[in-house]
Amino acid sequence: MLVSPKGKRYFRIVNPEVTLHTHDGKLEMADVLEQGFGGQALTHLGRPYSILLPTLYDLIKGVKRHTQIMYPKDIGYTMLRLGVGPGKRVVEAGSGSGGMTLALAWFVGDTGTVFSYDRREEFSELCRQNLDWAGLASRVQWFSKDIAEGFEQTDVDALFLDVRTPWEYLDQAAAVMTPGGTIGFLLPTTNQVQDLLAGIEKSSFGEVEVLEILLRKYKVNAERLRPDDRMVAHTGFLIFARKTTRYPCPG
Amino acid sequence: MLVSPKGKRYFRIVNPEVTLHTHDGKLEMADVLEQGFGGQALTHLGRPYSILLPTLYDLIKGVKRHTQIMYPKDIGYTMLRLGVGPGKRVVEAGSGSGGMTLALAWFVGDTGTVFSYDRREEFSELCRQNLDWAGLASRVQWFSKDIAEGFEQTDVDALFLDVRTPWEYLDQAAAVMTPGGTIGFLLPTTNQVQDLLAGIEKSSFGEVEVLEILLRKYKVNAERLRPDDRMVAHTGFLIFARKTTRYPCPG
Amino acid sequence: MLVSPKGKRYFRIVNPEVTLHTHDGKLEMADVLEQGFGGQALTHLGRPYSILLPTLYDLIKGVKRHTQIMYPKDIGYTMLRLGVGPGKRVVEAGSGSGGMTLALAWFVGDTGTVFSYDRREEFSELCRQNLDWAGLASRVQWFSKDIAEGFEQTDVDALFLDVRTPWEYLDQAAAVMTPGGTIGFLLPTTNQVQDLLAGIEKSSFGEVEVLEILLRKYKVNAERLRPDDRMVAHTGFLIFARKTTRYPCPG
Amino acid sequence: MLVSPKGKRYFRIVNPEVTLHTHDGKLEMADVLEQGFGGQALTHLGRPYSILLPTLYDLIKGVKRHTQIMYPKDIGYTMLRLGVGPGKRVVEAGSGSGGMTLALAWFVGDTGTVFSYDRREEFSELCRQNLDWAGLASRVQWFSKDIAEGFEQTDVDALFLDVRTPWEYLDQAAAVMTPGGTIGFLLPTTNQVQDLLAGIEKSSFGEVEVLEILLRKYKVNAERLRPDDRMVAHTGFLIFARKTTRYPCPG
Repeated sequence: MLVSPKGKRYFRIVNPEVTLHTHDGKLEMADVLEQGFGGQALTHLGRPYSILLPTLYDLIKGVKRHTQIMYPKDIGYTMLRLGVGPGKRVVEAGSGSGGMTLALAWFVGDTGTVFSYDRREEFSELCRQNLDWAGLASRVQWFSKDIAEGFEQTDVDALFLDVRTPWEYLDQAAAVMTPGGTIGFLLPTTNQVQDLLAGIEKSSFGEVEVLEILLRKYKVNAERLRPDDRMVAHTGFLIFARKTTRYPCPG
Repeated sequence: MLVSPKGKRYFRIVNPEVTLHTHDGKLEMADVLEQGFGGQALTHLGRPYSILLPTLYDLIKGVKRHTQIMYPKDIGYTMLRLGVGPGKRVVEAGSGSGGMTLALAWFVGDTGTVFSYDRREEFSELCRQNLDWAGLASRVQWFSKDIAEGFEQTDVDALFLDVRTPWEYLDQAAAVMTPGGTIGFLLPTTNQVQDLLAGIEKSSFGEVEVLEILLRKYKVNAERLRPDDRMVAHTGFLIFARKTTRYPCPG
Repeated sequence: MLVSPKGKRYFRIVNPEVTLHTHDGKLEMADVLEQGFGGQALTHLGRPYSILLPTLYDLIKGVKRHTQIMYPKDIGYTMLRLGVGPGKRVVEAGSGSGGMTLALAWFVGDTGTVFSYDRREEFSELCRQNLDWAGLASRVQWFSKDIAEGFEQTDVDALFLDVRTPWEYLDQAAAVMTPGGTIGFLLPTTNQVQDLLAGIEKSSFGEVEVLEILLRKYKVNAERLRPDDRMVAHTGFLIFARKTTRYPCPG
Repeated sequence: MLVSPKGKRYFRIVNPEVTLHTHDGKLEMADVLEQGFGGQALTHLGRPYSILLPTLYDLIKGVKRHTQIMYPKDIGYTMLRLGVGPGKRVVEAGSGSGGMTLALAWFVGDTGTVFSYDRREEFSELCRQNLDWAGLASRVQWFSKDIAEGFEQTDVDALFLDVRTPWEYLDQAAAVMTPGGTIGFLLPTTNQVQDLLAGIEKSSFGEVEVLEILLRKYKVNAERLRPDDRMVAHTGFLIFARKTTRYPCPG
């Protein structure tokens, strides 16, 4: 990842024979390679570009998107809540532009797998391109199909449903998950949250939680510390629940 | 993990010869083993206990604490921002009760390592006990020493400083990190944030961000959806920065 | 208003012949009278009580309540939004414990009037007692009747409806208001807000606004400034609209 | 106040001989007069303009500003907290563009007075113009002087200081206020709040409160209710305190 003096970011796999054409002049990739991560390379106009190893945060910000992607504030909490981690098997629907897919693939590691569903072929493709770009595609399997027909896996550790009417797929969701596994949802409107809660009441999911995460940034100024004037006020409501098996009433 | 009808949680490694004494009567671990994750076992008084595989979220909530531990809302975002993931080498100070240590150990997996510093011997011990309990101690190395004397590692991917006066250790922090790596801080007061920002200005860290994360829960009721009456309003300010190498001015 | 060393508040009309029995000993009202507002009087145990002229904020906090009363954060904004001020004629329903009534009576002054409706006789009575106590009862008229039967006024400047199903009374509301006047609502759940918005769409009200007001307090400490650990996260949604007269489509 | 089909607002004193030239065509003020408040008048292109009596909220939004003016969310709470109301005598510094002045003048009524200080002559003038426009100038007296030299009044009920270094004027503030009166401050940065709190500790003010008010708007849509995507995240910190007279320690 190369960061220009003005903060513009370029993601490139370094090939020493390539020259990058920037707004600040030509940058030799051979120089970038020589300086290494944390160093700076100069363009032919003498402008310094920082060379940084991208974190997951950088990668999510760099995703090529056709849809609104999930925000890091929501993704981070979801990872914890779903228990995503090295070696886990996780399903998500829909794939969208792949912001969430990228985070899931990052955290499950080489020993885990992400199964990413989207009925819109073009989004499966876009998601795959973004995962390829991030170098994490080997951890993901894509399925261009309607989840109303069910998922092809069983006993997955966690499931994330980012679809418009998730209450229509709760049976399919229960079927793919391991008992005790956690399911997560992202919904923008209160009407949808109400419909989902009504659906969950009749399902085999329990331990429900509804919440929002707000991120408030501050101006970076030691002498004049204050919150930013404006902030993102709403991305969506997060809903989490757990697959439970109801014990038959004794007697 | 066993959840009582009233929501009380027990964490146990299942030994079929053991009987758990609960407020709801005796629970045979042999029954728990038979039912498996997602099932329910009955006490001798006929009360059902749910059997669940703990997620990272459950583990963090279950940590035995002598100090305030970090909240999941702050931990999740920090993991993303620091680029923690399978195979990473990460340093933290202080160890505290081990809530953050547990999350770091969870995400770095068997191929990564967490180096956890605390000058107070009793906290290194408490942290170790909690990691043992969570089954993740093999991924962590503890150091009971004052970080003013420096860290024993080099080229770690990320560093998290949860200490009272982090601005005193920025040189030690820069020395342990790989160029381009991300450092994170948690501070409760605005005065401390100001002091840290002043310190960072004179350090080799750049790309600074100051923020707060707020989590707002809702009552789980489809017919009467509304936010909870009260919420946690403040845990701490999160500050992130990146280790940069200043390129010498040409000429 | 008398404030004890521990912050307990007493509201009394000063009668120099009376002795107030407090947890800190006896306090002679003659002493209070002598010291005057801003001064302090000592109990017979030598403990100082501050003597303060109550502001509207103090009065609202001092209201004897049987129901949840509106919070100052919501009342203040509502006063502005409804255009309440000296000389205005304002209707409210229901009276409740009189927190809102008190604020309306405070701001309309001696030249304005508040018409306060509640179908529950006991609340009209409680509200009246609280306004008597605050010395503002002369500005209020109470009506113990169901607003489904309509209001007895016409051409009032503003209307505030704090009832459970306000969408059932929009015609009655429109009938009592002057054209261009502002109506306000307080509702705790999103389901109610949705029902109200659906009702307003079919009514003669326009220029609708839905919002929440959050108040975040800080610890008063110059060396350790930080937000309070916990806060009130939800009191209710405020909805405002304006009575408009639809112009008949020309031609 | 005239509101165009697109929501643009015009404030005019109606003169039946005048024609208003709008982006939607010519509007005859004689028509506006005939329709009255709450009605609509048509332009010569047949586009309807709503005719509304402005509320305080409308007036504040309509103020001609050269500086950032206070937001209604902050003004409303401040009115309550300061105990502003009909007949009160209130001092403010600085006058600024007059947004706060307008609110104070609105609430003190014809029987109260606002004393508005600003050392910058041009702001006293702008403030006066805005109060003239709102028809409330008769309730305000302006003083173009430095408040370091003190205020010319005594025993005012409340004081609002919207200046950059209010801790320099606490003695002058105490001198102008009646015992028990409330003082309010608006400050944008945490550094200033810290300095003010340190100053107040050494002053004759007590019962201090520091807070922020956040206003979160929702999209007005019964079928898709959700918060707005973005919001104003920070205007300033509000600080309130009370003038107290310290009783001399007995003995």
